[in-house]
Amino acid sequence: MNITTKKKAVVSLGHQALGCTTMEQRTAVQKTARVLADLVEADYQLTITHSNGPQVSMIHKAMTELRRIYADYTPAPMCVCSAMSQGYVGYDIQNALRAELLSRGISKTVSTLLTQVTVDPYDEAFYAPTKIIGRYMSEEEARIETEKGNYVSEEPGKGFRRVIAAPKPIDIVEIEAIRRLAEGDQIVIACGGGGIPVIEQKHALKGASAVIEKDSIAGKLAADLKADQLIILTSVPCVYKNFGTDSQEELSALSADQAKACMQDGQFGENDMLPKIEAAISYLSACPGGSVLITSLDRAADAVRGRAGTVITS
Amino acid sequence: MNITTKKKAVVSLGHQALGCTTMEQRTAVQKTARVLADLVEADYQLTITHSNGPQVSMIHKAMTELRRIYADYTPAPMCVCSAMSQGYVGYDIQNALRAELLSRGISKTVSTLLTQVTVDPYDEAFYAPTKIIGRYMSEEEARIETEKGNYVSEEPGKGFRRVIAAPKPIDIVEIEAIRRLAEGDQIVIACGGGGIPVIEQKHALKGASAVIEKDSIAGKLAADLKADQLIILTSVPCVYKNFGTDSQEELSALSADQAKACMQDGQFGENDMLPKIEAAISYLSACPGGSVLITSLDRAADAVRGRAGTVITS
Repeated sequence: MNITTKKKAVVSLGHQALGCTTMEQRTAVQKTARVLADLVEADYQLTITHSNGPQVSMIHKAMTELRRIYADYTPAPMCVCSAMSQGYVGYDIQNALRAELLSRGISKTVSTLLTQVTVDPYDEAFYAPTKIIGRYMSEEEARIETEKGNYVSEEPGKGFRRVIAAPKPIDIVEIEAIRRLAEGDQIVIACGGGGIPVIEQKHALKGASAVIEKDSIAGKLAADLKADQLIILTSVPCVYKNFGTDSQEELSALSADQAKACMQDGQFGENDMLPKIEAAISYLSACPGGSVLITSLDRAADAVRGRAGTVITS
Repeated sequence: MNITTKKKAVVSLGHQALGCTTMEQRTAVQKTARVLADLVEADYQLTITHSNGPQVSMIHKAMTELRRIYADYTPAPMCVCSAMSQGYVGYDIQNALRAELLSRGISKTVSTLLTQVTVDPYDEAFYAPTKIIGRYMSEEEARIETEKGNYVSEEPGKGFRRVIAAPKPIDIVEIEAIRRLAEGDQIVIACGGGGIPVIEQKHALKGASAVIEKDSIAGKLAADLKADQLIILTSVPCVYKNFGTDSQEELSALSADQAKACMQDGQFGENDMLPKIEAAISYLSACPGGSVLITSLDRAADAVRGRAGTVITS
C-alpha cells in the first residue's frame, strides 16, 4: 500500500479514553484501541496524543507518599512524574492497539516516544496558574507549599490543593523523532499529557512546574507534522451552540471564522470545548488545507465517514 | 556527514551511570552524558540501553505504598512500574545528553522509546527466580506473597524480599521503531531496564513478573541492529582473569572462544561479568564481524581509542 494515499491524522485522546486507576485504564484502552483500529482500517496514518491528569496525579501522590515514609528518597518533581506517566499510559495504549490491529490481521509497529515541549518562562499562565493537581492538603501543608513559591487553591470543606500553570507550547523537542516514525508509516504515541513542559536554560531544558493542555499540543503536533486532519476525541459527539440550554444546537460543520465568532460569543466552556476550538483554529492557520474533527470515542468511526461529529475547516 | 562512515554502536549503561534516587540520577547522568558525547564526537552512531534496578524498585515501592494508603488505587503490576521507569530514566538521560551535545555545538535528536521484549513463559528462569527486588517485608507479608504465587528470599536479620525471574529475551517488540530512528542517525534510548518482559497470549502481550538482564538485551539489540560494536560500560575498566586474587590479570583482547573457555573455567561472577560475556558471545555469533568493548564509564573515551578496556571479537 502506498503511504501517500493515506490520510495523515493526529488523534487527541481525552481522559474518557483512559480511565483513572491502573485497572480502569487497562479496560478503557481496549475500547479506545478498537476506535483507533477503525481509523487505521479507514486508511488513516495515526499519531496519537493523550491526556494524563489522573495518571500523573496518581504517580505524584505515590512519589510524595514514598518521600513521607522513606526519608532517603528525594522528592520527584512534576516533570519526572510526567515522564513516568508518559511511559505508563503509552505502554497500555500501544499494547491494546497492537493487539487490536493484529486481531484484524494488521501488523504494524506502535510505539511510545517520550516527549518534551518548551514553554516560555514569561508565559502569562505562570503568573495566574489555573490547573488543579494532586491530593487535598491541610491548611498547614498549604502554607508550606505557598512558602515554597507554589500556588494553592482552597475548596471549602475539602481542603487545599496545588494549582499549577498551563502555559502555551512553543516547540516539541523530539519532533524529528516523531516525524521520522510517522513518515515510516508507523503509529507513534507522543506528547502524552501535553508533553513534559520544559524551559530552555542555555543548552539545558529545565522541567517547568506546569502542565500543557493536551488539545493545545495536539494542534501544534498536527501543524508540525502537516497532518491532513486533527481528530479530537472527547466526551460529546459534536460541538454545540448554546450547550446545555433549551436551544442547544448541533454544529456539524464550521469555518474557522465561524468558530472564532462562536468563541467570542462565549459559546465554549473554558476548561472544556474552548481549548479544543483554540487548537483547531491554531492548526488550521498553519495548515489551511487541513480539517479538524471533534467527536466522541463512540462516534469516531461514523464521524470519519461524515455521519457524526463537527468538522472545522478554513 | 555521511552516515555510512559512522560506527554503529549499542551502549549498555550500568547502575553506576545512573545512581539511585531522583537527585542522584540527575547528577550521575551529567557525567554519563559527557562519556556518551565523547563517543558521538568519535563518530559513533549510538543506541543506548540502561539498567533500572533502583529506579523500578523505587517506583514499585511508591505504588505499593500508595495502595496501602488509598484503598481506591488498584495495585500497579511490575510491568507498569517498569514502563514508568523507562520514561523516568530515559527523560534524564536524553536531556543530559542533548544538553552536553549542544554545548559542544552538536544538534542531534535524542529520544526515548518505550520498549517491550517477549520472553518464553516456559523459560527455566520462571521455575527458579534469582533477581531480588523491592523493600524488605515481614514474615507475615512474605507468607502472603508466597500464597499469591510469588517467590521470596530471606536475608537473615534483615527480612524477606521478593525474588523474580530473569528470563532470556526473545524478540524486541518495537525493534522497527528503534531501527528507523537509528537509521535516521538519531540517538535513541531503548530497552531501558532490559525492556518490559512480556508473554505473547494470542494477539496480546501480557506483562510478565520478571526482569530481563540489561546486558542480555543489549547484546540482542546490537545483533538486531547489526551494530558494528557493543559497548558495555560497567564498574571495572576491563575484564580480568583471576579477578580479586593475587594473580589478577587484565585481559585487553579476547576471542569469543577464549571468552568461552574463561567462562567454562568459572572466571566470571554470576551476577557481575558473566552476563556481559554471555551477551558478547551471543552478539558475536549473530554479527561475526563486530566487536565488543567492555570498560568503565571513566575509561570509555580511552577505550574506544584502544587505550583501555577489553575488546572481544570473533
